[in-house]
Amino acid sequence: MPSSSSADQVADSPAPRLPADHPAVNELFALLAYAEVAAFYRLTDEAKMAPNLRGRISMASIAAAEMGHYEVLRDALESRGVDVVQAMSKYVSALENYHRLTTPSTWLEALVKTYVADALASELYLEIAGGLPDECVEVIQAALSETVHSQFVVAEVRAAVTASAKQRSRLALWARRLFGETITQAQYLLADHDELVDLVMSGAGGLSNVTAFFDRLQHTHDQRMSELGLS
Amino acid sequence: MPSSSSADQVADSPAPRLPADHPAVNELFALLAYAEVAAFYRLTDEAKMAPNLRGRISMASIAAAEMGHYEVLRDALESRGVDVVQAMSKYVSALENYHRLTTPSTWLEALVKTYVADALASELYLEIAGGLPDECVEVIQAALSETVHSQFVVAEVRAAVTASAKQRSRLALWARRLFGETITQAQYLLADHDELVDLVMSGAGGLSNVTAFFDRLQHTHDQRMSELGLS
Repeated sequence: MPSSSSADQVADSPAPRLPADHPAVNELFALLAYAEVAAFYRLTDEAKMAPNLRGRISMASIAAAEMGHYEVLRDALESRGVDVVQAMSKYVSALENYHRLTTPSTWLEALVKTYVADALASELYLEIAGGLPDECVEVIQAALSETVHSQFVVAEVRAAVTASAKQRSRLALWARRLFGETITQAQYLLADHDELVDLVMSGAGGLSNVTAFFDRLQHTHDQRMSELGLS
Repeated sequence: MPSSSSADQVADSPAPRLPADHPAVNELFALLAYAEVAAFYRLTDEAKMAPNLRGRISMASIAAAEMGHYEVLRDALESRGVDVVQAMSKYVSALENYHRLTTPSTWLEALVKTYVADALASELYLEIAGGLPDECVEVIQAALSETVHSQFVVAEVRAAVTASAKQRSRLALWARRLFGETITQAQYLLADHDELVDLVMSGAGGLSNVTAFFDRLQHTHDQRMSELGLS
């Protein structure tokens, strides 16, 4: 019976994927492109807190990798005929605001932010991208690809919190604040940009799975806290 | 006759090349590695003067490319068993001093410095590397490889100096000061580091050709001034 089969299909994939030429794709690429640029400048600023040349260089390498990611998105946007700088402009204030609200005050706080908040942001972007065709998801994945640099963060933070219980509780609190602020700001961003909401709604499960998604975010966040010795 | 053939060889290449495992190679690699890191931080600092997002992104891309160059040298040093950060440390003060003496006060001065002084420094490094075996020169060349970004510098500076004669004479003066300061600081650096002098002496022609070398530097500098509309 065709009608029943169609109903099964709806149950399997509640919302159809957006087409690759949907304007929401450009919006997500542009948001992510500016996020990479903002991360570049934030990391180089924070590198000034590094206690030594080694830390300053590690931070510079992470920052440079963000520009590599930016270039992936810029190329994708250009090949879609988009004026990249203009498209990014509308996301400048939201991202600057986010970084202002989560400015680290010490080198260790900067390291924790690099590790915890950047990974969380990646998960948010990938979830938003869930409703896109594979070719678009691949661009996002390339732009979010893990760099090899994060091991130096784990080593430095673990050493510091192993040596000092006070440092551990201070950084655990900081990481919890980063988690909350990142989720909050992501919600504001979605609320301000309808095209991005379309993407979330068209993703696997749409908004009906938002609770499960936040559970997953909390779970991976807890794992990262444990890796850093902060749980 | 072997002896005559050997004499011919000496006439062709007045000084023998240093072997690849000469300690001076590590010194030059370390100097250049820190020069890339210093350039990275200088460019990201100066990008704050950019009048718009487009300029800020172009500067970030150039800076990120410097870190790519740094990584070439880091890998070469590591494969030679050198502690990279320690080896670079002795060149920190000379390079920070150079950048302090040539800090641009406007965005256009920053662009001119990016174009003029970085090219000049490359020529100096390649000259110092002249006495090295090919495998070492190739590392240096990879680390100094031109990026595609410099065209944006030419376009912005030309537009500015075409629009304003006052701006043209101001930037021409600035470029001349950069030329002088770069040469002067390079001489101080050599004077402080005997191993690097060994390299210059072992290069094609050694010190006997220093005058010809400075003539060449002046010539390529004049060409760049002309490209920027500053001659």
